[in-house]
Amino acid sequence: MPAIKEITASQLDTKEFIREKAEEVSRIVGSGIAVNALSGGVDSSAVTMLGHKALGERLKTFFIDNGIMREGEPQQIASIFKKLGVNIEIIDAQDDFFSALKGITDPEEKREAITQTFYKKVFGNLVKKSGAKYLLQGTILTDVDETVAGIKRQHNVFEQLGIDPQEAFGYKIIEPLVQLRKDGVRKVAEAAGLPSSIYNRMPFPGPALSARVIGEATRERIALVRKATTIVEEELASSGAFQYMAILHNDRVTGMRDNKREFGQQIEIRCWDSIDARQARPTHLDFGQMEKLAKRMVTELPGVVSVTYNIATKPPSTMEAI
Amino acid sequence: MPAIKEITASQLDTKEFIREKAEEVSRIVGSGIAVNALSGGVDSSAVTMLGHKALGERLKTFFIDNGIMREGEPQQIASIFKKLGVNIEIIDAQDDFFSALKGITDPEEKREAITQTFYKKVFGNLVKKSGAKYLLQGTILTDVDETVAGIKRQHNVFEQLGIDPQEAFGYKIIEPLVQLRKDGVRKVAEAAGLPSSIYNRMPFPGPALSARVIGEATRERIALVRKATTIVEEELASSGAFQYMAILHNDRVTGMRDNKREFGQQIEIRCWDSIDARQARPTHLDFGQMEKLAKRMVTELPGVVSVTYNIATKPPSTMEAI
Repeated sequence: MPAIKEITASQLDTKEFIREKAEEVSRIVGSGIAVNALSGGVDSSAVTMLGHKALGERLKTFFIDNGIMREGEPQQIASIFKKLGVNIEIIDAQDDFFSALKGITDPEEKREAITQTFYKKVFGNLVKKSGAKYLLQGTILTDVDETVAGIKRQHNVFEQLGIDPQEAFGYKIIEPLVQLRKDGVRKVAEAAGLPSSIYNRMPFPGPALSARVIGEATRERIALVRKATTIVEEELASSGAFQYMAILHNDRVTGMRDNKREFGQQIEIRCWDSIDARQARPTHLDFGQMEKLAKRMVTELPGVVSVTYNIATKPPSTMEAI
Repeated sequence: MPAIKEITASQLDTKEFIREKAEEVSRIVGSGIAVNALSGGVDSSAVTMLGHKALGERLKTFFIDNGIMREGEPQQIASIFKKLGVNIEIIDAQDDFFSALKGITDPEEKREAITQTFYKKVFGNLVKKSGAKYLLQGTILTDVDETVAGIKRQHNVFEQLGIDPQEAFGYKIIEPLVQLRKDGVRKVAEAAGLPSSIYNRMPFPGPALSARVIGEATRERIALVRKATTIVEEELASSGAFQYMAILHNDRVTGMRDNKREFGQQIEIRCWDSIDARQARPTHLDFGQMEKLAKRMVTELPGVVSVTYNIATKPPSTMEAI
């Protein structure tokens, strides 16, 4: 793999970068069509804007509703792009993902099941049907670094998956953001006209809410952690924290309702202070806020009897639980 | 079961109570011998003192080292009683308990395995060998209430176990504390000459550290939660809290050491403010203290990468996790 020439956020001239990359995409795709998958994350959002600038309606953008997104997320994202004149097609692929996740408890196998379902099944079929010869991907330099270092397997780095996309799916991959890191991408996203809810979007994991469920990611458990996520995001939006999340544990703990014992569920809340996600400390929320969060969890979420707040640092913890 | 006449702590005349109950024990046992099992909790400690007063050396007191006690606990307790002129025989029964706990993950089955091993095997044999016809037990009124209500199955309430002790083991049970609640027992323990470390002892569960391990209670996992317990007790001794504990989860979470991913363990800390254990709130520790606790856990405990603090209230939580 040839070394990739990094463009730091401070070096970056966003207008020039967008112009140049749009031209490059346009040159490669020619009069053909390209596809991309939008998750609503800053990387795929920036790529969608770049691709749209280069190709207009010849870029076909899909939002794969895998069933493990947050509450209302597919519709919210599609609506943001609609306002910018970009049409997004939402594909309901919930059944495919939940059947792939069935019975899987190991975090690595979960990640793998999602990746395989996405690329080999759902998105693979969409690309085939579309007749596109090009796929735009929001891979950034950090994804490449982390995958090479074996720290995290990024779902958008194909080599590791043993996939030659051209051979497997008949398309080439274009990665216009691969010289940037996250801070650079945020600047590009802003310059491309995306709203702050996108370019300042809190990091959200590739395997989405399935990364927020320890153990099997069933429809029911995803629905539960989705509600917990809504509560955490409502309560901590004004915390100024780098990232916050709710995690549904697999362990059962004893609780008590109506004077009867109930083996219930536990939600773990993590809320991180961090500059660049490489190191992190728990945000010093006040106890009133933590108790309110706990109260909402045990009141609004059926079967939840216990709530914890993570107090470790990264390292040796990571931001996400799995 | 005939109604038990409660003696409240405020009604209680401790000297008179001790004199009366010692006489009663003496009258029942006559010139025979009696046995009891001391755990170091305030109930069994008070009963040991009462029985010793009544019977002297004709009360044989065993401390069953079940392998799931805290660091150095059997020796500490025996030494406290030795200073008061009471000899305690420590019985190493670790193998019996760990083999009974093998493979068991359900909390109720764990509790049951410990109870059965204790009464049917270890203690049952000791009683038989001793030739004693009487067993002194520290049952209190709350144990009876909770067992009747089905909230908690107390290990010292035989009826529920389907055991008629006289028939099963050939002995009768004497329960001198059964009219008292915890606050009354503390007063009796103090009046009987026990030190504050006993009569003000923080509540500790019957199934000991096996109640602090979610999932299987192996020797290794007990050893880990024992170390975590030592850390929590050192760090929170001056917190003034009602009860504090460390719990080892069964769920694995992702951590990172030396830039490599490590699926590690999580310790949950609970620290409760409470008057009478019926309701409880998380103690408002300051973040410096919580971060120090977390730091010690991830540094001193091999494989631990994550630490949480419980922020729910009782109810719907309980004090203990299982």
